[in-house]
Amino acid sequence: MTFFTFIEILGTLAFAISGIRLASAKRFDWFGAYVVGFTTAIGGGTLRDLMLSLTPFWMLDPTYLVVTAGALAIVIVLGPYLIRLNNTFFIFDAIGLGLFTVVGIEKTLAAGFPLWVGVIMGTITGAAGGVLRDILINEEPLIFRKEIYALACVGGGAVFWLCESVGLSAGFTEVFTASSVIVVRVIAVHYGLKLPILK
Amino acid sequence: MTFFTFIEILGTLAFAISGIRLASAKRFDWFGAYVVGFTTAIGGGTLRDLMLSLTPFWMLDPTYLVVTAGALAIVIVLGPYLIRLNNTFFIFDAIGLGLFTVVGIEKTLAAGFPLWVGVIMGTITGAAGGVLRDILINEEPLIFRKEIYALACVGGGAVFWLCESVGLSAGFTEVFTASSVIVVRVIAVHYGLKLPILK
Amino acid sequence: MTFFTFIEILGTLAFAISGIRLASAKRFDWFGAYVVGFTTAIGGGTLRDLMLSLTPFWMLDPTYLVVTAGALAIVIVLGPYLIRLNNTFFIFDAIGLGLFTVVGIEKTLAAGFPLWVGVIMGTITGAAGGVLRDILINEEPLIFRKEIYALACVGGGAVFWLCESVGLSAGFTEVFTASSVIVVRVIAVHYGLKLPILK
Repeated sequence: MTFFTFIEILGTLAFAISGIRLASAKRFDWFGAYVVGFTTAIGGGTLRDLMLSLTPFWMLDPTYLVVTAGALAIVIVLGPYLIRLNNTFFIFDAIGLGLFTVVGIEKTLAAGFPLWVGVIMGTITGAAGGVLRDILINEEPLIFRKEIYALACVGGGAVFWLCESVGLSAGFTEVFTASSVIVVRVIAVHYGLKLPILK
Repeated sequence: MTFFTFIEILGTLAFAISGIRLASAKRFDWFGAYVVGFTTAIGGGTLRDLMLSLTPFWMLDPTYLVVTAGALAIVIVLGPYLIRLNNTFFIFDAIGLGLFTVVGIEKTLAAGFPLWVGVIMGTITGAAGGVLRDILINEEPLIFRKEIYALACVGGGAVFWLCESVGLSAGFTEVFTASSVIVVRVIAVHYGLKLPILK
Repeated sequence: MTFFTFIEILGTLAFAISGIRLASAKRFDWFGAYVVGFTTAIGGGTLRDLMLSLTPFWMLDPTYLVVTAGALAIVIVLGPYLIRLNNTFFIFDAIGLGLFTVVGIEKTLAAGFPLWVGVIMGTITGAAGGVLRDILINEEPLIFRKEIYALACVGGGAVFWLCESVGLSAGFTEVFTASSVIVVRVIAVHYGLKLPILK
């Protein structure tokens, strides 16, 4: 297992757990919680792949199904003790957000689209799964009101553009982009930074 | 008209009627009820076809539009007397669920994907229309809390795999798979079998 | 800029503003309001393009992103004074609905589908963005209960068919189709015409 795969599994796990926990608060059954967790984890990338005319990534590799099953097992076994791990899951979630943003940008560029489409697709990859989760549990999307989240992905896109402009290698560009997303999220949550409410 | 087509129309009718009845409980107008009924009937298969990079099936054959119009006429004409037909519609719905699961699995295998993708697509074909219906009428998805439903499709996928493994013909595999879904649904509703609630 | 482009920008602006205003009533932040406005403006056409196996139109031209930014700026700057412009926005919205219906029909025919699919895709192009908007803000879709809206698109499809049948040129067909949608909307709102509620 490469370091990249390890990071991706951590991020998928964090996304799936966030879906399963919110589903359990709504008293969904195990199957419903699994579906909500899976949708949270793979929803953004699926939307991206459909718009890029690609086969959704999880249909080519059963890892994501298995990781979601692991997430369900963790929630069932740990139950109320999960709250003590909130900080851990927050970090996993931020790492996943950074990585998914990079994956979304690069897959879009590889499909032949310009960078501004890549930035949108990076943001969708990172943030749309959480929106689909909130639609499934019939709540207003959380990310449109909480601390800076999707905008961190857009900022990551700007960093990606900057790195490319000054001629950095692909590896450095990826690391700087993902790190910038993670740093923005950590700072936003630490200081409670939110965008202004409209009106 | 083949027996297969007859079964498909029954299932489509049952799905559309379930959507139209729930829309009418929300005081939607005729057009809104039609849209909700149509989405319930074709939503799962549409999601499947988009993910398989195929043209949504209902765009190639106007039958589904016409059957949904029939469903709307039935609900308007029969009105409150529909309640007496609840058992009939339950059976139609179970038959549709079984058939749609088989169609979803076979279309996925024909597109070159492995069986585990087929089982997911069979479940989406059978159950996702009801989830889209509940999103349109702004309710929490019913199938994540009521008697075993989507899991019956997954079980049907397991039966399909078993039939293929022992070398049964395509016809027998289809009949056993669909029947297993129907039987599980009938037993689940008769005995009120539900999955455990999470937490 | 051609007249066609000018009309398209007006319609996009009206759709985006309707999304942003409803998002602000839910106290979404600026980013959330932008996403809801953008989804309202491009959601119908995106759904259409995915079902026609085409790349979503807004991924090929950044105009729609920019127009949505303009819509956000208008809502922020004008704020409560927007109410006085309600009639203006209603006209823009009706013009957009007419134009989007025509675009949806023609793009579907160009992709090789028959006219009945074109009528559905024209209706989706015009009306589905508003449904996606209402799903994002967690409300029951407005168009399923208010004055005749999506049905005006279906009526426009009938006019398109009539124009083609009698051999009118493409230009006349487009103008008559869009005008019929606009006229139906204006009459429906002026006289408060609604479809019957089901049950």
